[in-house]
Amino acid sequence: MELKLLIIGFGRVGRGFAELLIAKRKTLQQQFGLNCSVVAIVTRRSGAIVDERGLDLSKALKAARNGRSLAEAGPAVKNVSTIDLLSNLDYDVLAELSATDIETGEPATSFIKQALNRGRHVITTNKGPVALHLNELQKLAGLKGAVLRYEGTVMSGTPLLNLIRNNLAALSIRKIRGIVNGSCNYILTRMEEGLSYDQAVEEAGRSGYLEADPTADVEGWDAAAKLMILSQAAFGVRLKTEEVERRGITNLTRKDAQQAKSKGKVWKLIATLEKTENGVEAKVGPEMIDLSHPLAAVRGVTNAVTISTDYLQDVTIAGPGAGNCETGYAVLNDLLACAHF
Amino acid sequence: MELKLLIIGFGRVGRGFAELLIAKRKTLQQQFGLNCSVVAIVTRRSGAIVDERGLDLSKALKAARNGRSLAEAGPAVKNVSTIDLLSNLDYDVLAELSATDIETGEPATSFIKQALNRGRHVITTNKGPVALHLNELQKLAGLKGAVLRYEGTVMSGTPLLNLIRNNLAALSIRKIRGIVNGSCNYILTRMEEGLSYDQAVEEAGRSGYLEADPTADVEGWDAAAKLMILSQAAFGVRLKTEEVERRGITNLTRKDAQQAKSKGKVWKLIATLEKTENGVEAKVGPEMIDLSHPLAAVRGVTNAVTISTDYLQDVTIAGPGAGNCETGYAVLNDLLACAHF
Repeated sequence: MELKLLIIGFGRVGRGFAELLIAKRKTLQQQFGLNCSVVAIVTRRSGAIVDERGLDLSKALKAARNGRSLAEAGPAVKNVSTIDLLSNLDYDVLAELSATDIETGEPATSFIKQALNRGRHVITTNKGPVALHLNELQKLAGLKGAVLRYEGTVMSGTPLLNLIRNNLAALSIRKIRGIVNGSCNYILTRMEEGLSYDQAVEEAGRSGYLEADPTADVEGWDAAAKLMILSQAAFGVRLKTEEVERRGITNLTRKDAQQAKSKGKVWKLIATLEKTENGVEAKVGPEMIDLSHPLAAVRGVTNAVTISTDYLQDVTIAGPGAGNCETGYAVLNDLLACAHF
Repeated sequence: MELKLLIIGFGRVGRGFAELLIAKRKTLQQQFGLNCSVVAIVTRRSGAIVDERGLDLSKALKAARNGRSLAEAGPAVKNVSTIDLLSNLDYDVLAELSATDIETGEPATSFIKQALNRGRHVITTNKGPVALHLNELQKLAGLKGAVLRYEGTVMSGTPLLNLIRNNLAALSIRKIRGIVNGSCNYILTRMEEGLSYDQAVEEAGRSGYLEADPTADVEGWDAAAKLMILSQAAFGVRLKTEEVERRGITNLTRKDAQQAKSKGKVWKLIATLEKTENGVEAKVGPEMIDLSHPLAAVRGVTNAVTISTDYLQDVTIAGPGAGNCETGYAVLNDLLACAHF
């Protein structure tokens, strides 16, 4: 099977995905009978290149790594809007991998709708459109006979969403609870080890675990967006941003971390989603948990989520919560789902 | 879609599965468009009943719970061998849920082959046939256009095998490591809490976590069989029983457990499978691990397995390692895979 991809966004995730496409080319062919070509890469800052016979991904990666225009790697298109490319190019799958705008979900939502309206499959790692509009986009995909996948929006490549979709589908999920923001968990782990909050934030920034503006992470917005995604994926219920009770980790001090330690406990930023008689309750906030609790052992940028069900008790999945190749793998895994549709 | 099931074995797993089939009847119909009927239940001790229009599962459960013959619940067949029933009845899926014979894999292996040879799908929770012959049975299933699933053979309903099959398939797995025997983990947890080995074994027995003969659990045979299954599922490599390096927990004392505790460590029975230049290396044995290690937090009858891959680092799944409904759920989940084939 041949699949033509249009990629929007060639930042860390887009490049991680491109690296994987190159590294796994043989595996995809031999194990899945799948030949993938990338017919377009569209970026905000480095231009757009299009070649319907397939772009040279290695060249594109080289240009991107060197901070050069993508035009070095293939035929550049100018003065054509992304919406026009989505409307006119010949592609099977849109990989929407641009940066998240959690307030509006734009322009990614419009791009996704445009592709779905043409009956094209869509994969995205962008939390904005999924947190705000998953139910609506899923409905549109269904109407148009297309697949919409978004594994990379929560826990990067760790297949939490596919676990829920494929393996817990016949169960009734009652609660989803865990650590879904790797940056905060890294900061809290380092504070537990003796750093002050500011030192830990600074170190997380240096290690590439934080955005230039760390507000989304440390104030819990990122975790809240992930709960909004999980609420739609697991319960079919769309939550508004203000319906998620949200506290961040900005008020925690080294003293708090040390005090917890002396009591055999540890602070974690815990995200909880629970089905109740009144609908779905969602909250994000720091909690002090026992060292013997499974989530206490989740350290650094690792994420872990426990799903409580009616007949299978609790199932926990833990794994990387970030990373270029790791999130790129989410896209690759979603691509296989599109291919087998 | 209609699916007719033939069930072999109506012990704890068979009854757990039957309870789930009743409880989830509506979910299966409404969510998956699936109508399941059980046309035969075959047991070693309580007889066999057959009704091609579908048996009354509630009646069968009642008879089994009261230790009565299944004849109370439907038309009994006598003087017909199980192989004959498998050859002549009209069914779509064999659910082979009888007790494990890890040395020979029989008679379950013959039953499974008979069904596959007729092109019938097979689901099994029986470790014997899968540990000894998975590759061969999978090949037969492929030839006959049938599905063979065995999620319940490792970690009961916790979907480890489906995770590997569906979500890590494009990755290269390097190592699989974890706690796959809930009984041993329960015993070690209780010893850590102050019980002697004998007290802990006795309590595990009383709680229904051990077979009458606990050798398979405490000497590591059960964990070894699970590694043999995982080796075939993840690496396509069949191991002989003697190729698994195996030590049990019978030499551990309360003193060992307490000494570990005083060092901030804990004993766990760890199963490890690793791809090396020389093939696949497998070992089961007690290991003393740090309290901060993720597996240290896995307590009681819970199981947890970490899968190390090339592009997704480590992914860990934890959940129930035993239980009637939990293992029954593995069968139900496998049934959905057969339905969607």
